[in-house]
Amino acid sequence: MANQPTENVFSDKLIECVSYTQNVINELNQATRDELLSVRQKYNNLCKHQYDLRAEIIAGIPNFWPTVLINHRVIQKIVTKDDKRVLAFLQAVEVREFENPMSGYEINFYFHKNEWFTNHCITREYHFREKGRSVVCVTIIEWNKGMCLFDNGKDVSEDGFSNRSGFFSWLQFERKAVGDTIGNYIKEELWPNPLKYYLNTEPK
Amino acid sequence: MANQPTENVFSDKLIECVSYTQNVINELNQATRDELLSVRQKYNNLCKHQYDLRAEIIAGIPNFWPTVLINHRVIQKIVTKDDKRVLAFLQAVEVREFENPMSGYEINFYFHKNEWFTNHCITREYHFREKGRSVVCVTIIEWNKGMCLFDNGKDVSEDGFSNRSGFFSWLQFERKAVGDTIGNYIKEELWPNPLKYYLNTEPK
Repeated sequence: MANQPTENVFSDKLIECVSYTQNVINELNQATRDELLSVRQKYNNLCKHQYDLRAEIIAGIPNFWPTVLINHRVIQKIVTKDDKRVLAFLQAVEVREFENPMSGYEINFYFHKNEWFTNHCITREYHFREKGRSVVCVTIIEWNKGMCLFDNGKDVSEDGFSNRSGFFSWLQFERKAVGDTIGNYIKEELWPNPLKYYLNTEPK
Repeated sequence: MANQPTENVFSDKLIECVSYTQNVINELNQATRDELLSVRQKYNNLCKHQYDLRAEIIAGIPNFWPTVLINHRVIQKIVTKDDKRVLAFLQAVEVREFENPMSGYEINFYFHKNEWFTNHCITREYHFREKGRSVVCVTIIEWNKGMCLFDNGKDVSEDGFSNRSGFFSWLQFERKAVGDTIGNYIKEELWPNPLKYYLNTEPK
């Protein structure tokens, strides 16, 4: 026990040295984050004009987005017969990263006037927060009387989740921000190149 | 039906236009990926020297890495009494992104000579492949006779997964590349700033 104070002083000195190195590492990590962010923001701005142009052209192609969704190998599995009838009115899909892309993104689904609901746009917002605390905010679907795909809420459990599967069930009820595979497929596969799915040329 | 050919020609022209815009978008997306990659590679190289320096200093602090692991709010929950006795020999932890950081990373656990196993280094490699097809490769632990923490394999099921929990069980058997929360905490929280956990100053 006699040398305990010396050992402690030695350890304290080493911890001070780690702390000094750590400050340099923290600064480099912050610089990495800043530079990655500015690259993503630069390209988001550059892409925006092209995405808007693409959307204008796509608007002239009948049934473009419903076809894209139904041709996706995973999304097609959750589209029910009822979903298909409503999805026929899907006019456009749009993915927008937030100003700080690390903080999240939104997916907008635009619909032509239809007999099922009154919304023109249904949005799913994915907010990524620190330590994996993430949330999804969803536009409430304003169903016309008797037209709700969820049997007027009868098959929605007390915690607000739907007991049925289906595209509109996902659109309205699924609230995982991380691990929302459908949202992820739309953002990472459909949005960057929907034409591949429209023409069904994706390699299986 | 009379105007079908005209409609088709019109649609074909629009698809050609989408295809043209898509090529521009693809090029911009590729340029984004290239630029993000080069930022990450630049900073990985800049950080490497600092991380090596930090490791050299940490090597002089007794029990640094075991303390870090045991102070982490989630990792501490999987560390058993047996694990603790073996983790006392943990000399260093090291996270290295691959040359292309998008393709994965490895975590190296270096151990002092001990009576449990003969490995000096146990590595978990996370390989991220296209379309979510990812794999984890793990160094087989060379247990000394009668020292295996998994009852010499008796509590390992036929598919090679362990039925017990624990840090060494995770280290040897967990094979999810995506959703491996322990690996993710080590890479994203402990590695960037282990001192915070050593000093137990992480805000709860």
